[in-house]
This record gives sequence, C-alpha cells and structure tokens, in this order.
Amino acid sequence: MASVPEFGFHLQTTDGKARRGQLTTAYGVVETPVFMPVGTAATVKGMMPESVAATGAQIILANTYHLMLRPGAERVARLGGVRKMMGWNGPLLTDSGGFQVMSLGPLRQLTEDGVTFKSHLDGSKHHLTPERSTEIQHLLDATITMAFDECTPFPATKPVAAESMALSMRWAKRSRAAFQPRPGYGQFGIVQGSVFADLRAESVASLAEIGFEGYAVGGLAVGEGQQAMFETLEATTPLMQADKPRYLMGVGKPADLVGGVARGIDMFDCVLPTRSGRTGQGFTRRGPVNLKNARHAEDPRPLDADCHCPACTHYSRAYLHHLFKAEEVLSLMLLSWHNIQYYQDLMAGMRAAITAGSFAAFEADFHAAQARGDIEPIGTG
Amino acid sequence: MASVPEFGFHLQTTDGKARRGQLTTAYGVVETPVFMPVGTAATVKGMMPESVAATGAQIILANTYHLMLRPGAERVARLGGVRKMMGWNGPLLTDSGGFQVMSLGPLRQLTEDGVTFKSHLDGSKHHLTPERSTEIQHLLDATITMAFDECTPFPATKPVAAESMALSMRWAKRSRAAFQPRPGYGQFGIVQGSVFADLRAESVASLAEIGFEGYAVGGLAVGEGQQAMFETLEATTPLMQADKPRYLMGVGKPADLVGGVARGIDMFDCVLPTRSGRTGQGFTRRGPVNLKNARHAEDPRPLDADCHCPACTHYSRAYLHHLFKAEEVLSLMLLSWHNIQYYQDLMAGMRAAITAGSFAAFEADFHAAQARGDIEPIGTG
Repeated sequence: MASVPEFGFHLQTTDGKARRGQLTTAYGVVETPVFMPVGTAATVKGMMPESVAATGAQIILANTYHLMLRPGAERVARLGGVRKMMGWNGPLLTDSGGFQVMSLGPLRQLTEDGVTFKSHLDGSKHHLTPERSTEIQHLLDATITMAFDECTPFPATKPVAAESMALSMRWAKRSRAAFQPRPGYGQFGIVQGSVFADLRAESVASLAEIGFEGYAVGGLAVGEGQQAMFETLEATTPLMQADKPRYLMGVGKPADLVGGVARGIDMFDCVLPTRSGRTGQGFTRRGPVNLKNARHAEDPRPLDADCHCPACTHYSRAYLHHLFKAEEVLSLMLLSWHNIQYYQDLMAGMRAAITAGSFAAFEADFHAAQARGDIEPIGTG
Repeated sequence: MASVPEFGFHLQTTDGKARRGQLTTAYGVVETPVFMPVGTAATVKGMMPESVAATGAQIILANTYHLMLRPGAERVARLGGVRKMMGWNGPLLTDSGGFQVMSLGPLRQLTEDGVTFKSHLDGSKHHLTPERSTEIQHLLDATITMAFDECTPFPATKPVAAESMALSMRWAKRSRAAFQPRPGYGQFGIVQGSVFADLRAESVASLAEIGFEGYAVGGLAVGEGQQAMFETLEATTPLMQADKPRYLMGVGKPADLVGGVARGIDMFDCVLPTRSGRTGQGFTRRGPVNLKNARHAEDPRPLDADCHCPACTHYSRAYLHHLFKAEEVLSLMLLSWHNIQYYQDLMAGMRAAITAGSFAAFEADFHAAQARGDIEPIGTG
C-alpha cells in the first residue's frame, strides 16, 4: 500500500515576488499559484465534478456554514465526507464558517467563546466556536482546514481592527489545539488586521508562533478596493514564511489574481466565475462579455476563440445568447464551465510565466489584452 | 462524397403487434421503437447534447412554437438550423406548433386559414398556417417535419371531433403541398379523430391518400386516460400502413411506452423524463422515486442499482436528496440525465425483446418490477 504523503509546500522558483510551488496533500499535488473553484453546498454550481476537473482545477472549496446547516456535518461524515459524497477526487479546502456567520449581521451574537447565530434556512439557533468549527471541518473531511476567525468588517477604526485581530489570534490558538492531524491534511491560520500594516505584521507573527501548515490573508475583498488590497498584500506577504503556502481568501476578479500572484500569493478562491456564469457574464482574454446583450444575437463566433472549453468550441455567441434569453439551464452550465476554464487557464499561464522568468511580460500582456476590449460586433440581423 | 441516404422505414420483425424497425435519415439510422427526448427551445433542459447522445438517444424533438418566437425561425436558419446551432449531430423532429398554439386558449383564434395568436412572451401577434408551419420547420432544418393540425380538445362530442379532424385533414393536404423535399428528410401526417374509431379510420385513409413518409397518432394523452388511449391505438394502428413509421405524440409514462409498443407504435416523445427530473422524481426499474422524500437523506445506495448513468454510478440517494433540498442545479442535471437514460434503456430493452420474440415476457417482467415498488428505506439517522 502506498503511504500517504506528508502535507507540505515546496517553493520551486520565484520571479520577482511571484512564486511557483507545489502543495502536496493526501489527495494529490497542487501546482501553485492555484485558483480553487467554490462548491458551497458540496457542488460547484451547475457543473459535474468531472467537468470541474477537466478544466484543470486541482482543489476545490466548500463552505462550513452551509454544510453544517444542510445536510449537517455529522450526516456528511456518515456519508464519507464531502469529497466522497460529491465525487471529488482531489483535495478539498473548507472555510471556517466565520466569514459567512459574520455576514448574518443582526442574526448573530459574538462573544469571546464564539458566535451564536440563527440559520438563514429555518431560524434554528447554532453556536460556532473555534473548537466546533474545527471539528465540523474534520467531519467534512477537509484536506485543508481553516482556523476560525472574525473577518473584520470594512471600514474599521484601528482600535476596532486591533481588537478584532487579537480575538482572531486567540481563536487561531484554540483552532490549532482542536485540530486533529492526519497524514496529508493541514490547517491554515488566517492573518487579519484590516488595512493596517502594523496590525497585519502583528497577526503574521502571532500565527507563526502558533504554527500552521499554511497561512491565509483574510479580511480583504470586503470593500476596501483593489489598491488598498494590493497595498495590504505588499505590506503583509514579505513578512510571511516563504516555505508555507499563502492563500488570499475570497479573491477575485482576473486582475486581482494577477496582482495577487505578483505580490506573492499562492492560492485563491472566489464564487465570481460561477456566479457571473449564471448571470450571463463571461470572462475572456479580452475582458468580460455580457452574453445577454443583443449584439450577440446573431453572432456565429465563439465567446473566446482561444478557449478550449465546450461553450467556446461547440457553440456560437448567438446560441449562448438565446439560452440566456430563454433562461435555459444549459446557459449557466456552459458559462460556468467556461469561466472556470478561463480562471484555470489564467493560473496555468501565470505558472508557466513564473517558471520561464517572464511574469512581468505576462502581466503586461494580460492587461493589454483586457484593455483591448471585446471583439467588434457583427451583423445583428 | 458519400451520398445522402433516402428517408425510409424498414420493418425488420414483429412480435405480436410490437414492431422492430429502422428509420433511415440524412443524419443516421434510428432503431425503433424509439423515444425522442424533447429539446423545446433547442436544448434538452439541463443536459449537454453529448450527454443526451451518451444515453443512447438517437433523435430529439424541438418545438416550432417556442423557436418561432425565440430566437425566431429565420434567425435559426441563418445560424444553420437547430441541429447545427445546438450541436446535435443526429436527426431532429419538430412539431408543427399546432398543439402548443391550441393550448393558448383565449389567446388564439382559429379559422380555415390557420391560427392567429399572441405570444406568451411579449404579447406580439402571430399567424400560423399549414404553409407557414411547414416553412418554419424547413428553416429550423427539421429532419422530420410534422403536418400542421388541430389537436382536438378532450372531451369532444363526435360532431366536434369530426369537424376538427376534417380541418386537420385539409391542413395536412396544404402542409404536404408546402413541404420542400430534401434527401434524407421526411414529413409525417397526424391522425386525429379523438377517441372515435370511425373518425380515426377516416383520418388514416385521408392521410394515406395524401401520402407522407410517416404517420403520427395525435390528440391522445390529453386527458382521456390510459385505457381510452390504448383502445384508440388498438382501433387505429392496424389500419395504418405497415411499411411506414408510427409516432404516438407526447407520450408518455414508462407504462404508456410499453403499452404503445405493444399496440404497434414505433416512436414516442415526452417532456416527462426531464420535467420530472427537475422536480425530484426519478424513474426506476421499480417504479418512480421522489428523491425529496426524507427517507433518502442518509441512504448511501444509488437511485437505481441497475442503471449506468452518472447519477446512479457516482452518487448516493443521500447526495441527490441533499442537492434537491439545497435547490442546486446539479440536482436536475443528474436526475434529467438519469430519467433520459432510464427511458432509453427501456426502449433498448423492448427492441431486444421484439428481436428475440419475447416481448410478452418483457412486458410482464416490466409490470412485475414496477409493481414491486422502491427498495426498502434504511437508517435515516
């Protein structure tokens, strides 16, 4: 029997601050930088897991908050965990539930112990603590477990951000104590501190003292804007251990991924490709395209001629437009697939560029192509 | 260059009244008896066309009424027809639009010339005649075009049914005159006459005099019940030409298909497998199963252990249940696929049984298995 590999990160090469690495897990090696499609309720919305894998996706994310409420963590455990239940063979990362619970606003109460909240599904009362969040993620069989934290709201005054970060650090310690190590599995701590560089530095140091298999940058992409996000990354990533993976949570648009990699980030997740796919927005090498727009109604050309996904190789913009106008399920199936494919191709391009030492040129080309805008419309009958 | 085959039907063998045949078209040979999945708006709802083909489906149906309104017949023609637009490589049958226009009730007006109606989408006014319906189906590039008819409402008095049938026969003649023959393409006439055997006989004779490549039995499955439907078939199919395909429109449940084949029908179509798939009803060898039912919540077994579709080979009932409760798109994707697979397997089973001369045994086994009911529930936690 093959032994399960140790969970670990190998930094292969760097190009500026951009990093090319490999994350070894119990369920395969993840080439970084990597984008993780989001499968909130143990399904990447509108896609078969084999289609997700076909895009080149290596690891996916599921949400603790949603799964603890439905179908329930213990039930998922009895069904063999999220991976087995949903038929995903690669590694799985779960968030801690903290971010989504915080988003409930008046439906939740925060104490030193944890968070009490009411389910958005049936109003039932739940209590989430660092210990319970970690246990739930164990029950879900997460390959990568996230520490339970408070995602500091934005904007926050410095005293508020400091207090919130300090709480997250105490929770990180409790999360680590509750983590049950398994070969090939790991747990990540989450750096907080809002947009304040010194708080971020303090958070990085606190987490390093506890010691995790990886570190996330949390509390960004919450309204601070791309510039403030990039500045915070520039102040934070140089302080983070080089030999551990760095994960920017909940990010983002294609330009955010490129900018994140340029600032030393290895891992990303975001609902944007699938959510946009449901509303008719396709990401392309020449920027986003709204397929509901009437100018596509008779356009026989593919959404993105350089894409090899089914939506681009088998169908015209005109047909995709028709599917969205007719509100057919196939519209979101095809466009979600395309958008995930685009994100995976973007990451693969960045990985190749870092290996080749040409990341700066890749970045310049990316921005130039996005700025060019969509192809000219043709006859709309 | 390979020459396009002539459209034609070859009756291979019979077993009782059940018929095993081959329908040759410009886009391949269809083994009959056959079930045609419905792709109303040029998509079989929730399925990629390659998945539809993977179930063994050989020919699909699209709806003239929906496509003439959106995206429009001329637009579809400019995009190369329905088959090319949607990426379906096999033959395609379109209905005439008559049935759906009649269903609009007060929104439509019937005259000798045709039907004037208001679009359910935007209230715009449209006029459909035998000539225009036939032209639209030509523009849609239907491999099999249906004659424009009035689907007689049920119940109807005999005088009403007679008048309606006579109108359909006059329209059939005009439809035939408007049909533009192409190699490997055909047009079917539609037998009407409600549940009155003598009217059906008259309709069969009228259509035979006009001459079509195939004949449909219309105006059934409209509320008359299975027994009346079967009795009407028993009175009708023996009068129909043996060397032409016979198509029972809009039918039906699994038992309707088995009973239809037993009464000499070669072709079927119905939205039931995909529509039921969207609501959580799965068809199985032991009858229908409602996956939303709580008894499936922790059932690790497949929906149908004898089915080789992805829903049954990769997933548990518990996961399918979860997907339906969470209203995830994947729920309907998987169950639509399963139901289409079940229908195709049922037809394949009937074809094999007819060839083997064991159709009566097949029919008995089918009913016995359906009557057995679903597998016993196991622990629900």
